[in-house]
Amino acid sequence: MHAALSKWSQLANSNALLGFIDVTLRGCAQVMFQNNPLTGLLFFAAIFVGAFAEGNPAVAFGSVLGTVAATFTGMHLKDQTSWKAGLFGYNGCLVGVGLPTFLEVTPIVWLCIILGGVVSVIVTICIADILKTWKVAALTAPFVLVTWTMLLASYAFGGLNSHALPLPNLPHDLVAHTPDLLDGIDVFHATFYGISEVFLMSTVVGSLLFLAGLAVSSLWAALFGLVGSLLAVLVASLLLGEQSAINNGLYAFSAVLTAIALGSTFNKPRLRVLIYTLIGVIFTVFVQGALNTVLAPVGIPTLTMPFVLASWLFLVPNKDVMPSHRQ
Amino acid sequence: MHAALSKWSQLANSNALLGFIDVTLRGCAQVMFQNNPLTGLLFFAAIFVGAFAEGNPAVAFGSVLGTVAATFTGMHLKDQTSWKAGLFGYNGCLVGVGLPTFLEVTPIVWLCIILGGVVSVIVTICIADILKTWKVAALTAPFVLVTWTMLLASYAFGGLNSHALPLPNLPHDLVAHTPDLLDGIDVFHATFYGISEVFLMSTVVGSLLFLAGLAVSSLWAALFGLVGSLLAVLVASLLLGEQSAINNGLYAFSAVLTAIALGSTFNKPRLRVLIYTLIGVIFTVFVQGALNTVLAPVGIPTLTMPFVLASWLFLVPNKDVMPSHRQ
Amino acid sequence: MHAALSKWSQLANSNALLGFIDVTLRGCAQVMFQNNPLTGLLFFAAIFVGAFAEGNPAVAFGSVLGTVAATFTGMHLKDQTSWKAGLFGYNGCLVGVGLPTFLEVTPIVWLCIILGGVVSVIVTICIADILKTWKVAALTAPFVLVTWTMLLASYAFGGLNSHALPLPNLPHDLVAHTPDLLDGIDVFHATFYGISEVFLMSTVVGSLLFLAGLAVSSLWAALFGLVGSLLAVLVASLLLGEQSAINNGLYAFSAVLTAIALGSTFNKPRLRVLIYTLIGVIFTVFVQGALNTVLAPVGIPTLTMPFVLASWLFLVPNKDVMPSHRQ
Repeated sequence: MHAALSKWSQLANSNALLGFIDVTLRGCAQVMFQNNPLTGLLFFAAIFVGAFAEGNPAVAFGSVLGTVAATFTGMHLKDQTSWKAGLFGYNGCLVGVGLPTFLEVTPIVWLCIILGGVVSVIVTICIADILKTWKVAALTAPFVLVTWTMLLASYAFGGLNSHALPLPNLPHDLVAHTPDLLDGIDVFHATFYGISEVFLMSTVVGSLLFLAGLAVSSLWAALFGLVGSLLAVLVASLLLGEQSAINNGLYAFSAVLTAIALGSTFNKPRLRVLIYTLIGVIFTVFVQGALNTVLAPVGIPTLTMPFVLASWLFLVPNKDVMPSHRQ
Repeated sequence: MHAALSKWSQLANSNALLGFIDVTLRGCAQVMFQNNPLTGLLFFAAIFVGAFAEGNPAVAFGSVLGTVAATFTGMHLKDQTSWKAGLFGYNGCLVGVGLPTFLEVTPIVWLCIILGGVVSVIVTICIADILKTWKVAALTAPFVLVTWTMLLASYAFGGLNSHALPLPNLPHDLVAHTPDLLDGIDVFHATFYGISEVFLMSTVVGSLLFLAGLAVSSLWAALFGLVGSLLAVLVASLLLGEQSAINNGLYAFSAVLTAIALGSTFNKPRLRVLIYTLIGVIFTVFVQGALNTVLAPVGIPTLTMPFVLASWLFLVPNKDVMPSHRQ
Repeated sequence: MHAALSKWSQLANSNALLGFIDVTLRGCAQVMFQNNPLTGLLFFAAIFVGAFAEGNPAVAFGSVLGTVAATFTGMHLKDQTSWKAGLFGYNGCLVGVGLPTFLEVTPIVWLCIILGGVVSVIVTICIADILKTWKVAALTAPFVLVTWTMLLASYAFGGLNSHALPLPNLPHDLVAHTPDLLDGIDVFHATFYGISEVFLMSTVVGSLLFLAGLAVSSLWAALFGLVGSLLAVLVASLLLGEQSAINNGLYAFSAVLTAIALGSTFNKPRLRVLIYTLIGVIFTVFVQGALNTVLAPVGIPTLTMPFVLASWLFLVPNKDVMPSHRQ
């Protein structure tokens, strides 16, 4: 596999089109922080499996269109190192997944995916410029902000119609009906759906492909992702969150990303990092619940914002907390 | 005209009162980024025309009071270069326009205009201090934040009563009734009202005075403002926004400012800038729709926040995007 | 008293447990910006008096648990100077007060206090890292953000039940019934409750203990706190705020902290500072009203966020406004 990858790299370097495809694949892989075209290929495969299984193929084509639009935009920027690593592509990929998931697919939505892909690159530079003072990455914030803007705008524009947005509503106290822990919770499915819900879909086969994509690039990332998902399911169950939400992985997908980010991407795995990551994952579940409440009156989903907020919170103090950064 | 202006400058430099008037006029002109007392004079004329035409003269007197309060406060600060350019005055001007537009005019509201003018200067320094790390200006954020605070507070205080605030409401999906593009849209009025709605009023004569004020200082600014307004009207129509909102210029006024800021104030006009500005204007329309939805439950208007957010977003990455900044 | 304090310092330095107790006491004192163990002792006494008087002793034990959890976490960080001054403890103290005030006390809530205390330290470092660019402190923002997160999450989790949270509601215009200024306002109780409401309780005896705690550390702090509370009560009455809210000190507690912060902690008392502080206190009352409106749809209290926002706003421009900082 290593030989095949270096063969591919050679090809990608010698041909402009193959080079563009290489960066597009890396863009998809960067959704879970991997700079690896094979990971991107497996991720795209997972997206197509999930989208067709859920009967919404526009999500799959949208992910390709969004990644391509963003990658094409990034090609014209100065920072070609980031571009080659796929760092201008992943938010466009998620915009392309997000819009057709929640909006009725019309020609205007395809235009919005292209515009969203382009603007996601501008938001990426903007946030990266702001955050570099504190040495923290933009994460998926550009995806969330662009998609939120367009989903919120869909309430104001007759040309954008909701497909699956939550109805705007004042928050209600959730009354727990099951006093028994894990009663009614399907831990297996909830954990695996947590992986695929990073791309807004519930699919076990897709999740296995996503995990395979992680594993070919980093075994630690795959492990942290899976453990993060499981821990989040258990914490949400202990707190008696809504069963269907837990079972669909909706309390776990942000935790998956928090776990990979804190545990393997921005720190080297070791005991102190493990404890820090576990606290971060647990807190992500609270942030998920809190954002669900905050967004209820405006009728939009949290997307991966709980991950973004919790990870920024735990990454900024990194150097003050981690002794390994001393040297 | 040039001779008259330099004669005026001489007078303003030699007399404290005339100097203060000069800075107050520049303060008004800075609402649309111009450092020119004649522009300010024409803008004040436009405000008086519009306010009296709409039967709410308090708006006109408020604009003068707010600009004077803010200019007076700024006079006591160290940064006299910014003060002389009117950069401490424009937010006070807009606070003075905004409060009597939305609140019943009582003695307390006049006090609030004075307080708001004073605090707008403090917010201006605060935001400028924060944003100078990224070389971006405060724009009209101080006006928006101070006015939002007071309008939101009006719900909590019996001494401040709403005059024209939107009723707090959960967002509803807008159902489009006209499938035909531009059906029911008055492009001419919508475009011109877009100019005057920067000052929260719908007046064609006022708009012509605002454009004249821009033109005496910068023809590019006048051109970009007008084109930005037209483009925003077309985009909002394509997205099937609410007709009365479009026709009153409510989707265009933030775009006017985005167009002037991105196209002529912070960049030199050229092709790459033009494309960047057009994308910025289009995205401003989405931000306008999104903020309308977000603010619906708390019953306040967006004011120029869509402009502020979109322009910050497009201005921070400026140096990474624009080749002209390389040198 | 001075001799007793230095005797205590000696003991605290020579014994690890006494040292930990010393830092825990200073942590409590830092809620009102004092680095003094005796102040902390008087504050804890006030909390116990108030909590037992209101029939909710969990608030008192929570304050101890939260301060200890945060202090224990801070002990493992590099910045031991801040730790010794109690700067990692005060937000944990307030989290421990806040959660049992608004949530039904269950074993999960005790776990939340511990988690909240730990996370409050991470938030403190995060915000301090971000704000040090502008030389501004984190104030009580970590407490507010952690507690907001958990209170918002309580709507999503059946395992966390509201005890005293406001019902989520769209804002309504307050209709004033008393045209006469101060009619129905109990200025004495409102002013004193304003002091103790910093710790979310209405108690005159507690307020006297809080003032005593301030006075043993700084007479100016005690004076500014009291005057800030009185001014806020008068401003809220002039604006015809809701009588019961004013009488319970709910318009005054943030103003108390603004007054101490602007008037005595981050500036030396002098005329220009006094004027600046008074404007800051008046504006805090508007921010309090505004945040009440903003938070109405999501059903959480403002906590001390009006103080945090107003004080950040007035502290960032400090060096541009205060001539004393020139040297």
